[in-house]
Amino acid sequence: MNETEWLKYLKKYLFEGSEVVKSKNEDCAVIKISKNKYLLFTTDALVEKVHFDLKYTSFFELGKKLAISNLSDIAAMGGEPRWGLLTLGSPSPIQISWIDPLMEGIVSALKTFGAYLIGGDTVKSSAFFLNLALLGETKNPILRKGAVPGDLIFVSKPLGESSAFLRLKKEKSLEEIPDTIKKAHLSPEPEITLGKLLSKYKLATSMIDISDGLLIDLWRICEENEVGAELFEEKIPVGEFATLEEALSGGEDYALLFTVKKENIKKLQELSSKLNKKLFQIGVITEKKKIYLVKDSEKKVTSPKGFDHFSS
Amino acid sequence: MNETEWLKYLKKYLFEGSEVVKSKNEDCAVIKISKNKYLLFTTDALVEKVHFDLKYTSFFELGKKLAISNLSDIAAMGGEPRWGLLTLGSPSPIQISWIDPLMEGIVSALKTFGAYLIGGDTVKSSAFFLNLALLGETKNPILRKGAVPGDLIFVSKPLGESSAFLRLKKEKSLEEIPDTIKKAHLSPEPEITLGKLLSKYKLATSMIDISDGLLIDLWRICEENEVGAELFEEKIPVGEFATLEEALSGGEDYALLFTVKKENIKKLQELSSKLNKKLFQIGVITEKKKIYLVKDSEKKVTSPKGFDHFSS
Repeated sequence: MNETEWLKYLKKYLFEGSEVVKSKNEDCAVIKISKNKYLLFTTDALVEKVHFDLKYTSFFELGKKLAISNLSDIAAMGGEPRWGLLTLGSPSPIQISWIDPLMEGIVSALKTFGAYLIGGDTVKSSAFFLNLALLGETKNPILRKGAVPGDLIFVSKPLGESSAFLRLKKEKSLEEIPDTIKKAHLSPEPEITLGKLLSKYKLATSMIDISDGLLIDLWRICEENEVGAELFEEKIPVGEFATLEEALSGGEDYALLFTVKKENIKKLQELSSKLNKKLFQIGVITEKKKIYLVKDSEKKVTSPKGFDHFSS
Repeated sequence: MNETEWLKYLKKYLFEGSEVVKSKNEDCAVIKISKNKYLLFTTDALVEKVHFDLKYTSFFELGKKLAISNLSDIAAMGGEPRWGLLTLGSPSPIQISWIDPLMEGIVSALKTFGAYLIGGDTVKSSAFFLNLALLGETKNPILRKGAVPGDLIFVSKPLGESSAFLRLKKEKSLEEIPDTIKKAHLSPEPEITLGKLLSKYKLATSMIDISDGLLIDLWRICEENEVGAELFEEKIPVGEFATLEEALSGGEDYALLFTVKKENIKKLQELSSKLNKKLFQIGVITEKKKIYLVKDSEKKVTSPKGFDHFSS
């Protein structure tokens, strides 16, 4: 079972109803806890040799990355991150030399966005792994569901640099790789502030964070809404050292991908100026359930790499 | 760093304050979300060859056990379990043959107590592991803090049988081991109903679930309240096939250990009759910060096995 099949399989065991507004096909589960307040609940794990390599990731960066992958899920719903629980699996006894920077990485990244660690468990395990379960809150959760044909598609930062790092480190020594690329992979910025404001001003009709790649994550939005999209190739913000392919299909960008009604573009521009943050309009939602890449008025269907479910 | 040292170490990174009523030294973190409502937040992981052996644990039982270890943490605070997120780490691709019974085990155990799975993640990992993060709710969380000298000590079921299973399976084939012992280890009953009622009627001054052994968990209550205890050896409910040593120090009983004011004993008896459930009064909280085992008016200091922190 690959990830797509797993997500599809899992759905039959997930509960939705009463307070649980959303559990399936989302970055976070959404629970209504009072008239005007929703809990967001997410979890993410990192496993050594699968998600990180201690040869080029420091323990501080690892802790930060664990926090960020969870924070980005909260950002993707327009939420405010609040409280986390850590699980640490380690084959060898815990040593101060590495647990101190690891904990500092987790706790400092959470704190930057107003969130706190409130519990933790450690287990013996032949694989070194970390799991964080994170709660957030919002008055207005932004779901994947909501985009309709005509809505404009935006991303919140240049793409592909995290993926470019993985390519460059095969060719070069760590010292030779530009700092911006290292940062994009090892400590990307979660888009909490932008997500919160899009929620506050009700500007996004749908939203997701790009963790598996622009095309895959855009397709998730499309599937959820039974729509398609046209992407303008020249407008896709390709990171400085990245290729177009990496911008389209590289993962772990932790950018927000969201859709906005045409009539709200001016408000979005005001938000962008206020935040002093460039937002990139890359395409438009269409009725036809395909993703087209448009260049010089030439249109071709494109398919997320490695995403076997796309063709169906 | 052993578990005791880890728990002590972790405290400096855990936040308490504002809505977070309790994060340190508890079975669950406690968050006040409205005037009359608290969230309980806990997480527990099971790792193959450390916490379970697939030779004598079925995938259904494994799923159930994962749910139960978390449910028991919610029970220990007097809470009502609500929503869980699963993380699954697997070295081999997911197969329907084992994922179906595993998921059924988790979901059915949660559902028995009114809780639901609302999300899940799967990761590749060289160790097979499961993590569940579980939320519960309560109007009146029962903390470890609260016991004072003179309070009577109770446990909610016979002890040591889970541990006896681990001994017996070395000596006998699985078929020769009595069913009650198998059940005690492989699918113990979490004490959700009792916990909820103790919370509702405000009968317990402190509470914990016995996951690491009676003496260790009693010592945790003692430490938190700067008190000690006298245990009456003859009153300790030793499971049918267990030894006294297993009842005192064997883990994974998932019994509730709680303290009650003398003046509330009658109300507790009424509760016990109403539930048709025997509760065992095993001792009394004392001022002197030691645990004594009392037998025939002979008193001796006892120390939780493998609990290095006890002597200090």
